Amino acid sequence: MLPVVVVHGGAGFVPKERAMQSKAGVCAAARSGYAILQSGGSSMDAVVEAVTKLENNPSFNAGCGSVLTTSGNVEMDAIVMDGKTLASGAVSAVRNIANPVQLARLVMEKTTHTCLTAHGANQFARAMGVPEVPQESLITEYSRMRWEKNLAPDANPVECQMGKMGTVGAVAVDIEGNVACATSTGGLLNKMEGRVGDTPCIGCGGFADNQAGAVSTTGHGEAIMKVTLARLILFHMEQGQSPEAASDLSLAYMKSRVQGLAGVVTVDPQGQWAARFTSSQMAWAAAQKDCLHYGLYTGEHFTQSIDEP
Amino acid sequence: MLPVVVVHGGAGFVPKERAMQSKAGVCAAARSGYAILQSGGSSMDAVVEAVTKLENNPSFNAGCGSVLTTSGNVEMDAIVMDGKTLASGAVSAVRNIANPVQLARLVMEKTTHTCLTAHGANQFARAMGVPEVPQESLITEYSRMRWEKNLAPDANPVECQMGKMGTVGAVAVDIEGNVACATSTGGLLNKMEGRVGDTPCIGCGGFADNQAGAVSTTGHGEAIMKVTLARLILFHMEQGQSPEAASDLSLAYMKSRVQGLAGVVTVDPQGQWAARFTSSQMAWAAAQKDCLHYGLYTGEHFTQSIDEP
Repeated sequence: MLPVVVVHGGAGFVPKERAMQSKAGVCAAARSGYAILQSGGSSMDAVVEAVTKLENNPSFNAGCGSVLTTSGNVEMDAIVMDGKTLASGAVSAVRNIANPVQLARLVMEKTTHTCLTAHGANQFARAMGVPEVPQESLITEYSRMRWEKNLAPDANPVECQMGKMGTVGAVAVDIEGNVACATSTGGLLNKMEGRVGDTPCIGCGGFADNQAGAVSTTGHGEAIMKVTLARLILFHMEQGQSPEAASDLSLAYMKSRVQGLAGVVTVDPQGQWAARFTSSQMAWAAAQKDCLHYGLYTGEHFTQSIDEP
Repeated sequence: MLPVVVVHGGAGFVPKERAMQSKAGVCAAARSGYAILQSGGSSMDAVVEAVTKLENNPSFNAGCGSVLTTSGNVEMDAIVMDGKTLASGAVSAVRNIANPVQLARLVMEKTTHTCLTAHGANQFARAMGVPEVPQESLITEYSRMRWEKNLAPDANPVECQMGKMGTVGAVAVDIEGNVACATSTGGLLNKMEGRVGDTPCIGCGGFADNQAGAVSTTGHGEAIMKVTLARLILFHMEQGQSPEAASDLSLAYMKSRVQGLAGVVTVDPQGQWAARFTSSQMAWAAAQKDCLHYGLYTGEHFTQSIDEP
């Protein structure tokens, strides 16, 4: 069944006028990840490529397009994990970096650590020759508008979170059966400076293990952390559940136990996959056997040839 | 069987001349946590009190006595988790704070977030009126000596890590059957600035769930993260294993799968407990039914009345 790549553009509510962009964005990301797998590239290469595409797309809350902190800054979190070695790399609360997912990969490959935060992550980026970009280049008009709206004295925080385009992420299996995951986010709208969510936290924002599968998550970070959502799904798969059943069981548990909504993309090492969510929407796309699958609303599942424009 | 509190002073190798101090430190911390449980205090109060005692004790790598980063700074991580609500709070790479475990508890209780890092954690501390202390007050002669030794051109990093007194932590069950955990650390000797290890990462440095139990971990952080050690132990307990069996199974898995050594303290909601490690040593102590248990080397288990000096 392998290879396969599955991406998500965040669980939440996508305003109608942004639905098309979201679908197009996840489809383009899945295509670019799949092209790497088809040419014999690794699952790690594929997920980093797909997430880089989503970070560069201002429609998503990661890289350019990230939401702002209460003080109006962009602070981003990202993680990657390699299922073959269980190695992982992450950055948290990093500023002025166009592609945090690539910096997370450098942490995994070039240091003996697994996570660098804030000033330390930027110091490392400089040492690696990763260019720092002006904060303005990461901020869209849309994210500034929502930040200002939420600071207003009569702000309705629930309504303000409604336009939220969540975290982005990807999972993949390559032709050698290696699994990998990557997740990247600007975090929570109007979060405190220095807030770290589930994304860079191993087992929460993602997990990958060749003996079980790989997961990337999105949704209410603090609730995802209470149930270590990615690791929970893989525990169910270790006990024989399919990616879809394990994802649904874990999302239902999270909803009933801590009243949290989320979405996930999941693969097993054979290339079975699932894109599941309890939020009202999650833009997702998967590419396998030259077929592109995608959807946004619950129950939606379109398919087309990967060669169709 | 409840109430009970179990503390650890870090997995690793304790030089002979420091063994007495380590044992005395964990015993004093267990006593102070137990006094709170006996007077009807919560398991959260007990673990925070025990870990505060260990942070204040310069013999341990947490609070005063923390190891230094490559640049000679103290950057600390801590986490607390409440098994009743699954709420948690953490700080990472925080500087100039005497008791990071208390700041982690404030993150849990006073914000809608679960983790604040670096500058954001210090900003929050100021807003809460938590005093900042001079970095010098957290640095011991011993930690500065080891830092300098490790920077020397002929340094043997393995030998330098030998004197390592690890992370500290505690788990407890109160008379209502609520479980809690707390873990605090200065991290890895001569780590990069901004390095975040397992301690503040939920499911790695600790986890607490009234439906399963509570765990606090110590050891090689990057390896602990690869197996989400605390959450792994609780998965085994959810499947019927005792705290001791679940801890041993998970530590053995970590050793064989990722060649990592670690130690843990574990409780179940009934008050059964375990202190287990694969490192050569781990200072630990437990207080239950007016009896104090403690040890340092593998197989060591002393007991005495809690009233004995």
